[in-house]
Amino acid sequence: MIRKIPGGVTAAKGFFASSCMAGIKYEGRTDMAMIYSEAPCTAAGTFTTNQVKAAPVLWDMEVVRSGRPVHAVVVNSGIANAGTGPKGLLLCEKTAEETGRQLGVAGSSVLIGSTGVIGPDIPLDKVTAGVALLKNGLSDTLEAGTRASRAIMTTDTVNKEAACEFELPGPEGPVTVRLGGMSKGSGMIHPNMSTMLAYLTTDLLISPELLKKAVRSVIPDTFNMISVDGDTSTNDTFLLLSNGLAGNVPVTEEDESYAVFRDALYRICRELAIKMAADGEGATKLVETEVRGADTKENARTLARSVVSSSLVKAMIFGKDANCGRVLCALGYAGPEFDPEKIRIAMTGKHGTVDFYRDGRVLDFDEEEALLILNEDRIRFEVDMNMGTESATAWGCDLTYDYVRINGDYRS
Amino acid sequence: MIRKIPGGVTAAKGFFASSCMAGIKYEGRTDMAMIYSEAPCTAAGTFTTNQVKAAPVLWDMEVVRSGRPVHAVVVNSGIANAGTGPKGLLLCEKTAEETGRQLGVAGSSVLIGSTGVIGPDIPLDKVTAGVALLKNGLSDTLEAGTRASRAIMTTDTVNKEAACEFELPGPEGPVTVRLGGMSKGSGMIHPNMSTMLAYLTTDLLISPELLKKAVRSVIPDTFNMISVDGDTSTNDTFLLLSNGLAGNVPVTEEDESYAVFRDALYRICRELAIKMAADGEGATKLVETEVRGADTKENARTLARSVVSSSLVKAMIFGKDANCGRVLCALGYAGPEFDPEKIRIAMTGKHGTVDFYRDGRVLDFDEEEALLILNEDRIRFEVDMNMGTESATAWGCDLTYDYVRINGDYRS
Repeated sequence: MIRKIPGGVTAAKGFFASSCMAGIKYEGRTDMAMIYSEAPCTAAGTFTTNQVKAAPVLWDMEVVRSGRPVHAVVVNSGIANAGTGPKGLLLCEKTAEETGRQLGVAGSSVLIGSTGVIGPDIPLDKVTAGVALLKNGLSDTLEAGTRASRAIMTTDTVNKEAACEFELPGPEGPVTVRLGGMSKGSGMIHPNMSTMLAYLTTDLLISPELLKKAVRSVIPDTFNMISVDGDTSTNDTFLLLSNGLAGNVPVTEEDESYAVFRDALYRICRELAIKMAADGEGATKLVETEVRGADTKENARTLARSVVSSSLVKAMIFGKDANCGRVLCALGYAGPEFDPEKIRIAMTGKHGTVDFYRDGRVLDFDEEEALLILNEDRIRFEVDMNMGTESATAWGCDLTYDYVRINGDYRS
Repeated sequence: MIRKIPGGVTAAKGFFASSCMAGIKYEGRTDMAMIYSEAPCTAAGTFTTNQVKAAPVLWDMEVVRSGRPVHAVVVNSGIANAGTGPKGLLLCEKTAEETGRQLGVAGSSVLIGSTGVIGPDIPLDKVTAGVALLKNGLSDTLEAGTRASRAIMTTDTVNKEAACEFELPGPEGPVTVRLGGMSKGSGMIHPNMSTMLAYLTTDLLISPELLKKAVRSVIPDTFNMISVDGDTSTNDTFLLLSNGLAGNVPVTEEDESYAVFRDALYRICRELAIKMAADGEGATKLVETEVRGADTKENARTLARSVVSSSLVKAMIFGKDANCGRVLCALGYAGPEFDPEKIRIAMTGKHGTVDFYRDGRVLDFDEEEALLILNEDRIRFEVDMNMGTESATAWGCDLTYDYVRINGDYRS
């Protein structure tokens, strides 16, 4: 049984975190965070699909690909270290070296993350001073994890953490395994690892291959199913570290233990992803779309994402206008072929369900009932394609005046 | 030589237009328009790629495919006649029949267009009454064409017309050929025939095959290169009618006459497309992006469209914030592979040029000079991919508070 527990990156055994005010761009708030495990970790990750990859992404891709043990992650907010050329990569190297020196581990065992404005260089002296502060502040309390999750925020309005625990067989009976994480991201969020940073830690003992496999199997239905504005960033990073301190019988094949872990990972990723969608820049509502009865899984995902990505659907949610033709329209231009006569669309909320579309017709519906649902915080569209058995869910948010305000004046 | 002239759908010989207040949805404004040619017309068209096609789109596709001569187009604004099932198609048939009866032509020679809210039925009695008014109001003056272009507007703030003339060989010396048109569209505008209606007329005598070929050759670089919000509508329609009254030597092969006509068609389509982008819902600025040096034409188009479609680029233009990393980012997630070290990005306006990015680095640029350009009405990004010789230009607009306001409360 998987139980939700408080905490984030320090929920699992042996993981420490810290945060500090390095003054890289923001004033009067923390802007650097560190995660540390004395025990060496196996790392799995996925990164932005953008052709333009920020320096820390290139750095992390290399570390993860190498299979080298990982001891720490250092993240800064404010400046993305993207579009910075060889100088940007050098900064990553120096940051990792300094972190390694401070922690007494190899620089090549340090992962780097950055989020913020594209273009400027990160001042090395500030990062170096920050790393020293981070090292001194390391703590394995839940509060330390929470503070770290605040330090990596940019336009986020709330910090995002999730954690859970479950039992797996140990050498002498069941042991408790913990998994937790933090994420940031509220703009430039779109399928395929868009401006989000997510760092997960677990004390599970598992083979590198299965750790990677678990990540690959949950990302398409969690982080890749959220959209805020259709922009995929240069810095998106998802990393999962496992240090094996839980003392479980090593997970080396796709057995029951793997299945439990995979399920736990799916839940934590889903929770963090939904938190990001709900905190979309300027958002007032979470929009969920489930597409059922699709012919293929990929088509189900594409159709669901198209609805939550549509500017017109997003604006209508903000305006509380039940213009359901826009949902139909967004399905229609998503790409997959379908017969408009066959599909059904409904909108659901705590106040009930409103059937919108059936037999090729937009239905007459009760406007007052629709308005009750549109007044809720979380609005859900249910689409039945009547073509097969595949389904997928996507999450997004409404499009508001504040989105425009935030993004019209973010850099300055 | 192609000369710009005043006018729209009545610029060419033998084309009449009219408009009326049919009271279909809007009050106190015209909402139906008619185009009519006594001489039978050859019709070429392209239509929405949305899987959900409005009834008038299905109707027009059939008429155009049949190759039957066309005499008239009847268009209404306010209700889209989409998501209306068989009842919607029946309405098209009855509208065409009534139009044919009034004009003394076959109902099957009448094209139909609709734009507005998806879902509701169009009241047949109002359309029937409207058709009678339209028939009585037909006129070949330029003013009649202008009034028709106003009647098809929805959230448009200005009507859109363009016309030109040029000389082609006739049996006894050069004759003047005219081409003109009108379009509407300011939201749901995205590559591949998105919510736009465009009707062009010409008195050119040309074979049906070459008329279609000319349309196919200009649409990809004009109407398909504009984006307002990424939503592709259920109703998009482009139609070109030629009645052959100019008296030119028939254009039956890809000779010099065809080349001149194709060029004229390109210019009119480009002008109407730019007018739509500039009138994007809530827009205050036109954004143009030219991508040069791409490896393929299609990649050039994809990259250029990605920049003008990015919510973050659009919001930064509105906010006058020279956050050029967002242009780089939008190129990066467009899809085509490229080397970020090779490309160059600049922003240009009447006040000069600001180099943004080169050699893998966002450059230090003069913020004041950038602000001068960002204060202009028309902002242009120039991207050199340094990969080949293909180029393409896309047009869009900024993302503003008014876009959210308009689309949060459009239906009601």
